[in-house]
Amino acid sequence: MRFSPLVDELIQNLRCLPGVGPKSAQRMAFSLLESDRKAGIKLADALARAMADVGHCQSCRTFTEEALCPICASAKRGKADTICVVETPADVLAIEAGGHFQGRYFVLQGHLSPLDGIGPEELGLALLEQHLGRDEISELILATNPTVEGDATAHYIADIARRHGVNVSRIAHGVPVGGELEYVDSTTLALSFTGRQPL
Amino acid sequence: MRFSPLVDELIQNLRCLPGVGPKSAQRMAFSLLESDRKAGIKLADALARAMADVGHCQSCRTFTEEALCPICASAKRGKADTICVVETPADVLAIEAGGHFQGRYFVLQGHLSPLDGIGPEELGLALLEQHLGRDEISELILATNPTVEGDATAHYIADIARRHGVNVSRIAHGVPVGGELEYVDSTTLALSFTGRQPL
Repeated sequence: MRFSPLVDELIQNLRCLPGVGPKSAQRMAFSLLESDRKAGIKLADALARAMADVGHCQSCRTFTEEALCPICASAKRGKADTICVVETPADVLAIEAGGHFQGRYFVLQGHLSPLDGIGPEELGLALLEQHLGRDEISELILATNPTVEGDATAHYIADIARRHGVNVSRIAHGVPVGGELEYVDSTTLALSFTGRQPL
Repeated sequence: MRFSPLVDELIQNLRCLPGVGPKSAQRMAFSLLESDRKAGIKLADALARAMADVGHCQSCRTFTEEALCPICASAKRGKADTICVVETPADVLAIEAGGHFQGRYFVLQGHLSPLDGIGPEELGLALLEQHLGRDEISELILATNPTVEGDATAHYIADIARRHGVNVSRIAHGVPVGGELEYVDSTTLALSFTGRQPL
């Protein structure tokens, strides 16, 4: 015998969250029921509204409930001549946290993965080509992940950019700042040599 | 600049879940938005209903949306003459997983903690006394946690039980099955000696 149906249902449904197993789901359900009902109600409400209303930005494909995301809608950055291509909205946040990039983004929402049925269409590359063809783009910075799939995606997009005569670059791969050479893997170390800069 | 207001609100609200920091909340929000909107809607619905409807069992104080929880409502166990006192509903589940205990439970929903304003009233000890006075109880098993607060709570309840002439016992503390003596802490080892059983 387990809990009452409604409590059981809540625990089961909490397991749809990534990284939440049966024990964590139980702990979350009890924590909300015990001491934080108001927060639970607010969460339910935010969740219901977000699931119903949040779509993709018409310009960069990140998540937003408006037609354009805050960056694409801003007068300063929405028409910037540099586009940074990333895999996920979380990558946008990571780059924004640095504050050094002032252009706009294009969010693929994934990477090329033919076995999973993810091709150029699923990544919205037609929309990216529209930007390259219509807007005045001086540079396309490819910031997909340094994985096999991310690299393949970057090369595919680089070909498109070249067809439109747009400068294309890839973010640098090398030793992370604060890291110690001794503990850096050999592939990264090799890339830090091929990508060396004149001083 | 962060995300759109609705996405931001969802991430903020997910942080009310225990063990969920800013990065996990972001990951959860994106996972639901990206690939699991149906599960998100179901979760929002289960959450809203649970927060509104789930109360406490009138007999044992565990969480339930009915007047009585499934155990207290069952013909076989609802009137059992043994009551096991535990701190949380999760403890009930842990004991039920073993399947060896066939009595009923009483859930304190916490332990005595005067500094936090948790006294006998907050733990529903008046309700427990009603059970001891009215029902025919042959034994009260105290299964509060083996912590300072849990032990204090057990002693306090034991005094009540003795006033009602009810047999009272505490679950055994000792070396866990499958554990190695070498790695067991000294207090537990001492308890395993004082609680030794004739063979």
